[in-house]
Amino acid sequence: MMPLILQSDFGQCDGAVSAMYGVAYTVDPKLPIYDLTHFIPPYDVWEGSCRLVQTLAYWPAGSVFVSVVDPGVGSSRLSVVAKTNTGHYVVTPDNGTLTHVAIEYGIDELREIDESVNRLPGSGESYTFHGRDIYAFTGARLATGHISFEEVGPSLDPKQVVTLPTMEPYIEGNQAFGTIDTHDVRYGSLWTNVPRELFLKLGVKFGDYVRVHIESDRGDVYSSPLRYCRAFSDASIGEALLYTNSLDNMAIAINRGSFAKAYSVGQGVQWKVTFTYPLNDAPLA
Amino acid sequence: MMPLILQSDFGQCDGAVSAMYGVAYTVDPKLPIYDLTHFIPPYDVWEGSCRLVQTLAYWPAGSVFVSVVDPGVGSSRLSVVAKTNTGHYVVTPDNGTLTHVAIEYGIDELREIDESVNRLPGSGESYTFHGRDIYAFTGARLATGHISFEEVGPSLDPKQVVTLPTMEPYIEGNQAFGTIDTHDVRYGSLWTNVPRELFLKLGVKFGDYVRVHIESDRGDVYSSPLRYCRAFSDASIGEALLYTNSLDNMAIAINRGSFAKAYSVGQGVQWKVTFTYPLNDAPLA
Amino acid sequence: MMPLILQSDFGQCDGAVSAMYGVAYTVDPKLPIYDLTHFIPPYDVWEGSCRLVQTLAYWPAGSVFVSVVDPGVGSSRLSVVAKTNTGHYVVTPDNGTLTHVAIEYGIDELREIDESVNRLPGSGESYTFHGRDIYAFTGARLATGHISFEEVGPSLDPKQVVTLPTMEPYIEGNQAFGTIDTHDVRYGSLWTNVPRELFLKLGVKFGDYVRVHIESDRGDVYSSPLRYCRAFSDASIGEALLYTNSLDNMAIAINRGSFAKAYSVGQGVQWKVTFTYPLNDAPLA
Repeated sequence: MMPLILQSDFGQCDGAVSAMYGVAYTVDPKLPIYDLTHFIPPYDVWEGSCRLVQTLAYWPAGSVFVSVVDPGVGSSRLSVVAKTNTGHYVVTPDNGTLTHVAIEYGIDELREIDESVNRLPGSGESYTFHGRDIYAFTGARLATGHISFEEVGPSLDPKQVVTLPTMEPYIEGNQAFGTIDTHDVRYGSLWTNVPRELFLKLGVKFGDYVRVHIESDRGDVYSSPLRYCRAFSDASIGEALLYTNSLDNMAIAINRGSFAKAYSVGQGVQWKVTFTYPLNDAPLA
Repeated sequence: MMPLILQSDFGQCDGAVSAMYGVAYTVDPKLPIYDLTHFIPPYDVWEGSCRLVQTLAYWPAGSVFVSVVDPGVGSSRLSVVAKTNTGHYVVTPDNGTLTHVAIEYGIDELREIDESVNRLPGSGESYTFHGRDIYAFTGARLATGHISFEEVGPSLDPKQVVTLPTMEPYIEGNQAFGTIDTHDVRYGSLWTNVPRELFLKLGVKFGDYVRVHIESDRGDVYSSPLRYCRAFSDASIGEALLYTNSLDNMAIAINRGSFAKAYSVGQGVQWKVTFTYPLNDAPLA
Repeated sequence: MMPLILQSDFGQCDGAVSAMYGVAYTVDPKLPIYDLTHFIPPYDVWEGSCRLVQTLAYWPAGSVFVSVVDPGVGSSRLSVVAKTNTGHYVVTPDNGTLTHVAIEYGIDELREIDESVNRLPGSGESYTFHGRDIYAFTGARLATGHISFEEVGPSLDPKQVVTLPTMEPYIEGNQAFGTIDTHDVRYGSLWTNVPRELFLKLGVKFGDYVRVHIESDRGDVYSSPLRYCRAFSDASIGEALLYTNSLDNMAIAINRGSFAKAYSVGQGVQWKVTFTYPLNDAPLA
C-alpha cells in the first residue's frame, strides 16, 4: 500500500476535501491519506503544476498524487494518470497540471482513466465533482492495489500530455535567463526556474553581487545588483538578496519582507528574470 | 474501530484543533482522525449544519463526526450524540447543528452526553472548551469502542432535537421554490436546497433557459434567465449558469467568476430562490 | 512509536508542509504525523512558543513536536531537541521557541542536533529549509526510534536555552499583574499569563466585577470593570467579560465580538494587564 497525497483549489472552508477523504477512506481504511495543499488559487493550473514539483520527490516512489485544479470539469478534457520516470503517480485532469512534472522528472507512461470502470458507484449524475467521484476514487484504488496501473485505462502517448508554455533556462555570455515560476507564498520570495548549477557557470561565489533584472508583459519591473547569499540570515533586515532555494533553483527575496508585494511580482512564463555577472555597469559619471 | 472526523469554527491558526487531536490520539493511538473543516465562520451553527450534510454520506456507516460550533458553551444547552438513519454518529452541542442531518438522513436515536462520565479526566474546571474536554473525548471513545452508544448517556426523543428554521422546497405550476442553503465558498456558487429530481419535474432539459429569481429580507436581488448546464464548461467565460451540484441539488454560478460576490448573496432560510420554466416573460414592447 | 506533531510559519498555500510530511513518511510509513498549526505569523517565534504550551500536554509523554519558526535559518543559531520534564520532545531552532515550554513544563535535557548525522541524505547544498532537511527528518527518526535521544547529538545545559523576555505574573495587595501572551485568534480573546489560582487569591467569585486594565508601550489601552464569568454564555451579546480559558489562565473577551480588534490589542511581554479586586474606584462626584 502506498500513500495518497491530495492537491486541489478547493480551499478548506467547506466539505469538499473531506468528501474526497471519505471516498478514499472507504476504498480502504488503512490507506494513508495526506495533503499537498488545497489552497491553489481557483483554476490556477500553472501553480498546481509547480507545487507538484515542489513536493513529489520527497515522497517515496510509488506514491499516488491526486491533483484537482479542473476548470474544464465536465468538458472533453481527458482524465489521466501519469507515471513519472521516478516511479510516482499523478492522477489529474490532462489540462497542463503535468507541465512541470514532465519537464523535471519526465513521464514514463500515461493512461486515460476509463470512467466506465473507475468511477465512484452511484455518482453517474454528478458532472461537477470529478475530484471526489473519479480522481480520489481512482487514486485510492491505485494506491491500495485494488487496481493496477494498467487497469486505469488505455495507454496514451506521454508526448501528447497537455502542457502549458514554458521557457527553458539558459546561459549566454555573462547572463543567465529564466522565468519566475512560483512564489514562496508566505515569505514573498520569487522562485525562478534557473538551477543553481546553471547559474554557477557564471562564476558567482557567495558574497558576490549579481545584477537581477525582472520584466513581464507590463515592462521592466526591477533591476538591481543583489548579493548571492547562503541564507536569509546573511542579509540585513529588509535587505534584498539572491539565494538558492530548497529546490536547488535560484530565488530572490527580501529578508523579513516580501519581494513579491514590494514590486507586485507575479508568476508564470511571462515573468522573465536575467542574472548578470560580473556586473557590467557603466561607472557613474 | 471507526474514523473520527472533526469540524469546528476554531480555524487553524492556534492550537485548539491540535489539542482535540491530542485528546483523541491519547484515547487510542490507532484511531484514524480526519478533518471536515475548521473554518466554519465563528458561531455559524447553520453553516456547520450544512457542511455535515455535504460530507457525511461519503464516509462509511459507523463513522463518528464531532462538530463544535458552540456559542452557548457553558450554558444549559445539551451535549448530544445523534445516530442517523444511515448509521453515522454526530457528537455536538444540541444547538441546531443537527438541522440538515435530521432533514436529509433522519435521526434514529439521540442521547445526551453524561458529562459525569464522558469528560476528559482533570478538565473539570474548564468551562470554555467542551470541544476538547467533552466532544473530542467522547467521540474518540465511541469511535474506538471504549464506550458503546448506550454508554454515551440517557436517551432523548429524536423529535426534540434543536433545529433551526428551514423551508422545504416545493413545486407549484411552472415554478420551483427553495432556499440558498450554502455556498461553494471558493467558487462563489450558490447551493440551493432544491433537489434535481424536484426541479426536473418542471420539464427542463440541458440547454434550456430557466428564470432564476433570488430574494432575501432585503428585497429582490437577482432575476434573469439562465441556461441549465451539465457543468461549468458548458458556459462561456464569465457566463452565469444553472447546474446540478455535487449533492444533486440545483446550484447557480458564474463560470470563472463568483456569483456570491457579484450580487452579494448570503445564505440561510431568508435567501429564497425561484426557478420558472417555461419562461413566461412578456414579449418586449 | 510515538506521534510526530508539526508546527511552522509556512502556511499551507504551497508544498513546504507536504515536503516535510514526505520526509517523515519516508523515514517510516507507519509514523503517525499530525499538525499543531502552520499559520504562525512569519518569523513570530513568540507565538510559536505560546502555541506549544497550548497543546503539548494534551499529547502523551514521548510525543515529538517539530517547531519551525526560523528567521535565522542558515545562521549560527543552534538546532536542538529539548526533552521536557513531562517527557515530551521539541525539535526546533534554539531561538526562543522554547521560552514558554521552559517556564510551564521545564526542560529536563537539551541536546544539539549533530547535523553531520541527522540530516536528510542529499540535502547538503540547501541552506534555507532546515524544517524539511533537519527538523522533520530528525523528529521522525526520534519518534520512530531510529535514533535514541542520546543520538540526537551532544548534551547542552538546559539553562542555556535561548529564551525571550517574559514577566512572571504576581499578586500585590488587591491587584494581580501579568501579560497578554497570546490570543484565541478566531474569537479575538486575550489570553493572559495569570493563572486562575493566582487570580483567585484576590478573593473573586463568579459574578463579581473586577477592574481590568491593559497597557502597552503605546500607553493605556483599556480600563473597565468586567464581570468574572464561567463562560461566554454568562455574558450578554456584545458584553465584555473576564473568564478562565482552556489553559486555566485568566482571559478577556467580548461575547460574539472581538476584544482584540475592538481595542487593537497585541500580544507579548509589552502588553501588560492588571486585575484589581475589590474595585477601589472613587465614587462619582
